Amino acid sequence: MNRNRTHFGITLSAAALILTFTNPLMAKGVAEQGLESHPKFVFFFVGDGMAMPQVNAAEIFKNASVNSDIKVSRLSFTQFPTSGLTTTYDAGSFITDSASAMTAMMTGHKTLSGVINMDTKKIEKYKTLAEFAKEGGYKVGVVSSVSLDHATPAATYAKVASRGEMYSIDVQLAQSSFDYFGGGGLTQKGKKDGDADVFDLARKNGFTVVNSKAAFDALRPGVGKVLAHNSVLQDESALSYEMDRAKDDLSLADYTRKGIELLDNPKGFFMVVEGGKIDWACHANDASAAIKDTLAFDDAIVQAVKFADAHPSETLIVVTGDHETGGMTIGFSGTKYSTFFEKIALQKGSYIAFNDEVLTPYKKNHSKENAKLEDMLADVQKYFGIKYTELNDSDKELLDRAFRRSLGGEVERVAQENIYNLYGTYEPFTVALTHILNQQAGIGWTSYSHTGVPVATFARGVGRDLFSGYYDNTDIFRKLSKAMALTVPVTVTMK
Amino acid sequence: MNRNRTHFGITLSAAALILTFTNPLMAKGVAEQGLESHPKFVFFFVGDGMAMPQVNAAEIFKNASVNSDIKVSRLSFTQFPTSGLTTTYDAGSFITDSASAMTAMMTGHKTLSGVINMDTKKIEKYKTLAEFAKEGGYKVGVVSSVSLDHATPAATYAKVASRGEMYSIDVQLAQSSFDYFGGGGLTQKGKKDGDADVFDLARKNGFTVVNSKAAFDALRPGVGKVLAHNSVLQDESALSYEMDRAKDDLSLADYTRKGIELLDNPKGFFMVVEGGKIDWACHANDASAAIKDTLAFDDAIVQAVKFADAHPSETLIVVTGDHETGGMTIGFSGTKYSTFFEKIALQKGSYIAFNDEVLTPYKKNHSKENAKLEDMLADVQKYFGIKYTELNDSDKELLDRAFRRSLGGEVERVAQENIYNLYGTYEPFTVALTHILNQQAGIGWTSYSHTGVPVATFARGVGRDLFSGYYDNTDIFRKLSKAMALTVPVTVTMK
Repeated sequence: MNRNRTHFGITLSAAALILTFTNPLMAKGVAEQGLESHPKFVFFFVGDGMAMPQVNAAEIFKNASVNSDIKVSRLSFTQFPTSGLTTTYDAGSFITDSASAMTAMMTGHKTLSGVINMDTKKIEKYKTLAEFAKEGGYKVGVVSSVSLDHATPAATYAKVASRGEMYSIDVQLAQSSFDYFGGGGLTQKGKKDGDADVFDLARKNGFTVVNSKAAFDALRPGVGKVLAHNSVLQDESALSYEMDRAKDDLSLADYTRKGIELLDNPKGFFMVVEGGKIDWACHANDASAAIKDTLAFDDAIVQAVKFADAHPSETLIVVTGDHETGGMTIGFSGTKYSTFFEKIALQKGSYIAFNDEVLTPYKKNHSKENAKLEDMLADVQKYFGIKYTELNDSDKELLDRAFRRSLGGEVERVAQENIYNLYGTYEPFTVALTHILNQQAGIGWTSYSHTGVPVATFARGVGRDLFSGYYDNTDIFRKLSKAMALTVPVTVTMK
Repeated sequence: MNRNRTHFGITLSAAALILTFTNPLMAKGVAEQGLESHPKFVFFFVGDGMAMPQVNAAEIFKNASVNSDIKVSRLSFTQFPTSGLTTTYDAGSFITDSASAMTAMMTGHKTLSGVINMDTKKIEKYKTLAEFAKEGGYKVGVVSSVSLDHATPAATYAKVASRGEMYSIDVQLAQSSFDYFGGGGLTQKGKKDGDADVFDLARKNGFTVVNSKAAFDALRPGVGKVLAHNSVLQDESALSYEMDRAKDDLSLADYTRKGIELLDNPKGFFMVVEGGKIDWACHANDASAAIKDTLAFDDAIVQAVKFADAHPSETLIVVTGDHETGGMTIGFSGTKYSTFFEKIALQKGSYIAFNDEVLTPYKKNHSKENAKLEDMLADVQKYFGIKYTELNDSDKELLDRAFRRSLGGEVERVAQENIYNLYGTYEPFTVALTHILNQQAGIGWTSYSHTGVPVATFARGVGRDLFSGYYDNTDIFRKLSKAMALTVPVTVTMK
């Protein structure tokens, strides 16, 4: 592939070509100091909770689902020519949360966990990269598989002292100048009597608000500002986990593709897309849900890749994660040097689908006295592919204990910290099931929170060279604003 | 810094400079297809068991040891301008061992775990990158902190069906044409009656064999081939863990510096340096030992960086890991979003030092009947900084159980797989201590084996651009041989 020519749309003379050859790396060094060309179309993809373990697990699973060879099937973005490594610590901890992580990437500032686009004292408000992009003439779109007022998408447009102030975030979304919002819902948590419905506020601010697949499909360029929130929601106003998604329900890729269609214009666009439920699945230590949502995130990136293939000299795609979640590892003490990812394919519903469809209804219909593990085993096999009779004794014991803790029966007196280490704040029975399945597959977890390991960043297109090396998440702001030639107040001090 | 000029030693005319500017990224694209310049001095550093968790933990610890800010102190190699990500699976598993991993990097071929430089059927022998380099006129050096016949250093020169054939490996080292070996010992495991001593064989093949600090210090350029093995050995003929090393004992950095001094010549050199005990510490889930050996590995890299600073237009340094070990994560369920790396500094000896200096002598002097945990607590505090009285109840219980399993007393009837998951094949009491300390620090582990997560690769100097992106460990062979302009039989099929 002659990437060069297509990137720049220039036909060089032979003389220039030869002279260029004499010192190719010198040219690159200069290129890093001041970009000669800037992308018109910029995609910024954030896999929430997605670090190398999540990416590589998805690659192993993708391959395992079609053959038994030992190899990985690369995702779209792991084939990008440039990769970097990105530290994620925030102002208060080596383990960031999504609010401070996205604040870092959107503003270049470290802040405290939970804070969105404000300083550590929660006084100063920071303008975001998406806002600078909008001022710079780009159209701006924000897509997420979780609710659009969740920390990561919120940090493209909102400034709040606490990510929990969701109604305030919703109002800021409704009042924003951005062009496209798509994906999950708006929780309107904290809305008080007399407060306006934020969808009404959005309409007043010129948004076409869409909440059905038919209306979504009918959206065409020229419609103006769009707020498209999904009609089918799971968990906290999020899209369904990919593994639970009905075939005719809209996917993250659908919202991304539509965004491209609506935002495409001669002055360019800046689009932020979050794969938000990778994180949620990893909090619950549900590898199957995490892997399949990582693949769904990749499907969304494929939409951008298609666009980039058609506009190679004008497009930049950057893919990163905001942090790792769960302390996921591709390896577990019990399986030593082996993995069995085909086990992951046996799981047919996410932990939340199992809770919603099996556990919660069962709890409603059964007192603690008449709850029986046997009643659950057919669904255990259906959702997780686990045959109780084939478990070893210690896994049976693990599951029995967890059943009693979730559904009733005598429980051991165990220190509170041990209960947390075993189950987090999740349904013990369900976590025990994902743990057993994951461990059989050779996947380990160490936490129900985030972890501090750096994430991987991938880039292709115009300006990609900026994203090589090892840098901080605040540098993402600097690199993106530099690539886009935005005038930003933060001093650009990149190594 | 004008890296360009120094890299190439060319003064460009203004005209050429301007033409180069017109399309800088094009030049880079061309550069990737065929290097215009090749390094004369090539360093290949392999951190055994070192992936991003190990690197980042060392950076956090390095900062934590001097101040309490939330920031990382970068290591020498994480400041390199180019980074890549490298998959490590071998022909038989997504989780490689060091033999197949180093075979991949040294020959471009995937093979089975345990096999060194032979095909999966253990028939065909592969020539290694170090051997191609030697044929190509480079002097060749191999340094390791573990025994020089251990899998990773062995894979620079030996071909064996099993890494366990150590005497055969030793003989191949003695017969090799390489110029410098430095670091740990030679185990001569499997040596039979009548077999020659390999140090004698080495001398016959022209090696000056050195086994004292005084003789090592006296080595000067012109001495010819050198085999320098350390006089102080720990564990399996390895250098001591950095945290156990006596001040006047030679370090990995010393062996690296001496290698540079002895190998430096107008035709250039290729030097492989392994930080081998990062892996061993991680197998034992001893974060403190792993972190301090990662810092010692970095000290060795600093020697190469100093050399590169003096020879910027002629040097390439590549740093990678062969795989991750232990499923280390910077995050643990019990500590949630916090870490306490200052705890790591409280540990004063490695797990093996504690075993050798405390546990084993105690076992010799105490029967199972009269072993008492109280006897051990002063040393527990001295080696690990753990005050038993300050532990919570569940950690006390954990330690009590482990003590009984290591030293005597009634043990619970627990399934064999659970015992393995708790302690691996290590001393239960010692592993319990590192687990408690690590978890207090916010470091989790999932395995006593390797894991499959990709490793990070860093590069600086001539040809560094080859090492950006996401690629396989077999590509390391292709990239290095391309950078060095070596004629190798493996088809170069890089993306």
